[in-house]
Amino acid sequence: MISQKMVSLVKGSSVIRAMFEEGKNLAKKYGAENVYDFSLGNPNVPAPDAVREAMIDIAKNEDPLKLHGYMSNAGYEDVRDTVAKSLNERFGTSFNENNIIMCVGAASGLNVIFKTLLDPGDEVITFAPYFGEYKNYVSNYDGVLVEVSPNTVDFQPKLDEFEEKITKKTKCVLVNSPNNPTGVVYSEATIKALSAILEKKQKEYGTSIYIVSDEPYRELVYGDVEVPYITKYYRNTIVGYSYSKSLSLPGERIGYLVIPSEVDDYDDVFAAACVATRILGYVNAPSLMQKVVARCINEKTDISYYDRNRNTLYEGLTKLGFTCQKPEGAFYLFLKTPVADDKEFVNAAKKYNILVVPGSSFGCAGYVRIAYCVAYETIVNSLPKFAELAKEYDLT
Amino acid sequence: MISQKMVSLVKGSSVIRAMFEEGKNLAKKYGAENVYDFSLGNPNVPAPDAVREAMIDIAKNEDPLKLHGYMSNAGYEDVRDTVAKSLNERFGTSFNENNIIMCVGAASGLNVIFKTLLDPGDEVITFAPYFGEYKNYVSNYDGVLVEVSPNTVDFQPKLDEFEEKITKKTKCVLVNSPNNPTGVVYSEATIKALSAILEKKQKEYGTSIYIVSDEPYRELVYGDVEVPYITKYYRNTIVGYSYSKSLSLPGERIGYLVIPSEVDDYDDVFAAACVATRILGYVNAPSLMQKVVARCINEKTDISYYDRNRNTLYEGLTKLGFTCQKPEGAFYLFLKTPVADDKEFVNAAKKYNILVVPGSSFGCAGYVRIAYCVAYETIVNSLPKFAELAKEYDLT
Repeated sequence: MISQKMVSLVKGSSVIRAMFEEGKNLAKKYGAENVYDFSLGNPNVPAPDAVREAMIDIAKNEDPLKLHGYMSNAGYEDVRDTVAKSLNERFGTSFNENNIIMCVGAASGLNVIFKTLLDPGDEVITFAPYFGEYKNYVSNYDGVLVEVSPNTVDFQPKLDEFEEKITKKTKCVLVNSPNNPTGVVYSEATIKALSAILEKKQKEYGTSIYIVSDEPYRELVYGDVEVPYITKYYRNTIVGYSYSKSLSLPGERIGYLVIPSEVDDYDDVFAAACVATRILGYVNAPSLMQKVVARCINEKTDISYYDRNRNTLYEGLTKLGFTCQKPEGAFYLFLKTPVADDKEFVNAAKKYNILVVPGSSFGCAGYVRIAYCVAYETIVNSLPKFAELAKEYDLT
Repeated sequence: MISQKMVSLVKGSSVIRAMFEEGKNLAKKYGAENVYDFSLGNPNVPAPDAVREAMIDIAKNEDPLKLHGYMSNAGYEDVRDTVAKSLNERFGTSFNENNIIMCVGAASGLNVIFKTLLDPGDEVITFAPYFGEYKNYVSNYDGVLVEVSPNTVDFQPKLDEFEEKITKKTKCVLVNSPNNPTGVVYSEATIKALSAILEKKQKEYGTSIYIVSDEPYRELVYGDVEVPYITKYYRNTIVGYSYSKSLSLPGERIGYLVIPSEVDDYDDVFAAACVATRILGYVNAPSLMQKVVARCINEKTDISYYDRNRNTLYEGLTKLGFTCQKPEGAFYLFLKTPVADDKEFVNAAKKYNILVVPGSSFGCAGYVRIAYCVAYETIVNSLPKFAELAKEYDLT
């Protein structure tokens, strides 16, 4: 009785989520300490103490009618003002509250912006490997996701192929850096080149092509890597941000969209996005959490925790003979599988209670994603299991 | 550049929300105490103290990783179990956690269930007057909202017309009792008759027709009025519930869907609804608030406050010569306009800083909705203004 569209979606339901459920079952069976669940991007660094303090202080001192009531669909004005000012300080932008829409996490922000922009058949280009849900977010609005094939040398986007794939129907380019699943950060050179191509193509076709920059991992970078703020390089850029990783609040569903005043048809786009927020049933971002993130605007998760995981995992795996690029951001490591069939490797790993996600779920077969946002002990204890796995493939 | 669908949606954007924004502007201009804003269903009774206490206790004592982390898309198992048990105690049902999906308010629940069930062209029948957003929720999934015309005698649904309008394409019947905008509660006799018609039509067509019961106002009833729990009368019933009004938490976006095990294709419907939750970008209901409502499962808003408003407003307006039915539930009064054109009346009222919503926004011209979830003083102070308005129409 369910809709035709949903029949196939249920069948091909998220491999990642299925594994999350499987991980919970394995943990029940073998004990959590004997399961190495690298399947889900669920932060393992707790939210900063300031989050707890803000929740308690706000709960104690704010008028519950205002705290829990409806506000404008875009969110509290003072919260949006705080977000805008913080971005301006950090990136030299000049946003104000009318450029910010608070959202139910970045996933809702992407849905809102695709609902706003896409007519049936409109194309959204993205670069493999990419988060598998993008396909669903786009097809929710009868858009077509166009993949640029992966560049497995350094996982920067293939710009030649990108340029070829831009058509009159291209409405958006969906960019995700730091990238899930590779941990790669798109360099400034990449962003500049990508922007130049888009400027040229907009002129050629007389269309507007929006970059939609999905940035849940913006704050998660290691060493002195810089993540360019794309609105500064390309006028028609819309940013989707989430506090899920930066403040370890994925369950709370809080993030925002940035719609700069400079984008084509700004007035319509902003107004339509507010309507989309409402009619998709989000209505507004959760009110208490809006106020909490505004109070914690300068807080950050403890990146050193992930960094230690990253180094330990990278060194451990490469020592065992596995091949991978060292991630610069996010909390994923994209491992080349020693056998072409990544699903076969995923199943082989499962025998050791190691749960990883096949790269084919991200449009890049022959790899697996290892989410290292786990306890350090999980990394350390998994390495002997990875060693046994490596032996199966004669890696050492 | 925005999508064709959104162009008309932005133009016809929610009259209610537009008025909410207008009310804020008028309040700035004339002072909040001189504006009688009856436009929005934004509760004026604060959340029970238990909500604050639960927030503080949970923030202080729960592990932030679990509190703010991802859980199953359907929500925390213990929260869903608590909700199911509470329903069973209250209504003699036999639900368990696998019948409950925690949602981002009822609006997201309706979107999830329409995404789950509707193929393009599928029909959803509803009874005028009805919440205007229903049209958008249905058209989000290319369904067609079929209206049964209003019965302005007592605002119970017109069942003859309903029966005539059921076709092979009817997938859902969207019911809302206590009703927004009339405050009418559908009687047990109505529910039984409606169910009998649906049973007959399901057999006739060999289809499954689901009642989708939108119940944000379930707890808001006055005197000893009973609101029948529809799953007990009709097997294919799915319930959308919200804590927005019952705990005064509209900004927090927290509610749930009930999908009973008895509905046709339960396994598929439940699985698809979980997928829909994810791919629409809600992912899961806000995690802290899930835990808060579970702790406050036996709490209720102070209904006596709304009851006083209801009586004062009803008596005041009828004394002035206005015509309306006394609401039995929700916090809306549906006033017959003394002139056929309800929008003309809305504009006349605005001259006195009285903001009400035209009935035509609810598919029932010739009426206005007055949301009396406001300060008691607003009711009292508005009555002399309503008196001046009444004079304009020679009511007294």
